[in-house]
Amino acid sequence: MNPKPLILITNDDGIFAPGIFALYQALRSFAQVCVVAPVTEKSAVGHAITISDPLRVQEITRKDDFHGYAVDGTPADCVKIAIRALMDRQPDLVMSGINSGANVGTSLIYSGTVSAATEGTLLNIPSVAISVASLTTGDFRGAAAAAIEMARRVLKHGLPGGTLLNVNVPAVEPDKIRGYRVTRQGNLHYREGFDRREDPRGRVYYWMTGQMLEPEKNHASDSWALNQNYISVTPVHYRLTDEDFLPDLKSWELP
Amino acid sequence: MNPKPLILITNDDGIFAPGIFALYQALRSFAQVCVVAPVTEKSAVGHAITISDPLRVQEITRKDDFHGYAVDGTPADCVKIAIRALMDRQPDLVMSGINSGANVGTSLIYSGTVSAATEGTLLNIPSVAISVASLTTGDFRGAAAAAIEMARRVLKHGLPGGTLLNVNVPAVEPDKIRGYRVTRQGNLHYREGFDRREDPRGRVYYWMTGQMLEPEKNHASDSWALNQNYISVTPVHYRLTDEDFLPDLKSWELP
Repeated sequence: MNPKPLILITNDDGIFAPGIFALYQALRSFAQVCVVAPVTEKSAVGHAITISDPLRVQEITRKDDFHGYAVDGTPADCVKIAIRALMDRQPDLVMSGINSGANVGTSLIYSGTVSAATEGTLLNIPSVAISVASLTTGDFRGAAAAAIEMARRVLKHGLPGGTLLNVNVPAVEPDKIRGYRVTRQGNLHYREGFDRREDPRGRVYYWMTGQMLEPEKNHASDSWALNQNYISVTPVHYRLTDEDFLPDLKSWELP
Repeated sequence: MNPKPLILITNDDGIFAPGIFALYQALRSFAQVCVVAPVTEKSAVGHAITISDPLRVQEITRKDDFHGYAVDGTPADCVKIAIRALMDRQPDLVMSGINSGANVGTSLIYSGTVSAATEGTLLNIPSVAISVASLTTGDFRGAAAAAIEMARRVLKHGLPGGTLLNVNVPAVEPDKIRGYRVTRQGNLHYREGFDRREDPRGRVYYWMTGQMLEPEKNHASDSWALNQNYISVTPVHYRLTDEDFLPDLKSWELP
């Protein structure tokens, strides 16, 4: 008998977020799933891990037989502890999401959703990050269908070591989605600022603000595809050496 | 009159760490410096930014005219708020360190020290991360000399947009350092585990543990050079698309 594939589900919006529930419902239609996710929202945590504090884990349940482990750590912590301590066997796939809000362009490096998938690849497990391009939508139908499609494809084809797939789904009615595009990480042009305020006790604090300067024009990019109502699929790796610059740097003739 | 270069100094060990003080002393010998750093230690925070909470900033002083801004955020927050809100003009260079502990191989992606330099490059400022390969040394002489050398070189030659230098200095007497090597990010082979314990109230918690499986054997790598008492200099970029895998992925013929 061919056992069902085992999929580890995690996210950065927290185990009680709507997106992870949608992902659970989608994947359990054909797979055995294990949910290990942060107990609270951990957006923009980047690839953080918790080394100075102990991690606590609690089992939680939601409706529709959803049960999982809530960890008081980051998405990367969740993947590490799931695979090294909580699961009986290695999962066949790690899926992180469904994140509320696109993870494209430069913002990839801040993304907790992507960091969970990165951690999966570091542990030699094929991994996919999936997001829907709205911070507020309650409609995960398009993204749930994409999650099933991508999970089946990755389970069938595998992925190269160290490479994950970053999938972004437009926040439109499913029949408005124009299909998939294989894309590159684009450049999102943000102008960040800081809003300086005083609290009721007269102490200064700052809120970070961000304004997108112009939409991405490169048709090969993730955000362009997403803006055109395509699902973007970008292969992402963490081989960070700038090979192109090595010869120049050698010409500096450091002592 | 040629004004002194302006260097933004930050770190992830916190503004009261010994390494940032050593970096301040080294760089102010020839540059104008501005220190903006986390108020407490922020190791392994990855490329996190603080979007859900306000940031507080306080001015602090240490001996030897050291003064700076302490931010209750991450290293990337410090660089953003320094450049967007606290400094009168753009710095000519961002230097992050001197970190206590090497930042080499796979651990790069968890590094707050490197993330600060990454943020500098995102803001189009040449940036350098510098670490000494000991968690406990109080001797920053070798690293301080390397910081001056690398700062002068980068101010002279510049760096390509989006590329930072990641510098690691052996924790040995300065006269034992064998010089510089231009290196690549290596693969550190760790085996992580979780140590399961119970607190006095009988509740379970976990500590992450890590064990290096074998030293890096690749002579082009950062950690090999460091183990041989060379200063490793790796050019690091964040163009994360796996270009090599794009053709394969296209052959999947997603619908």
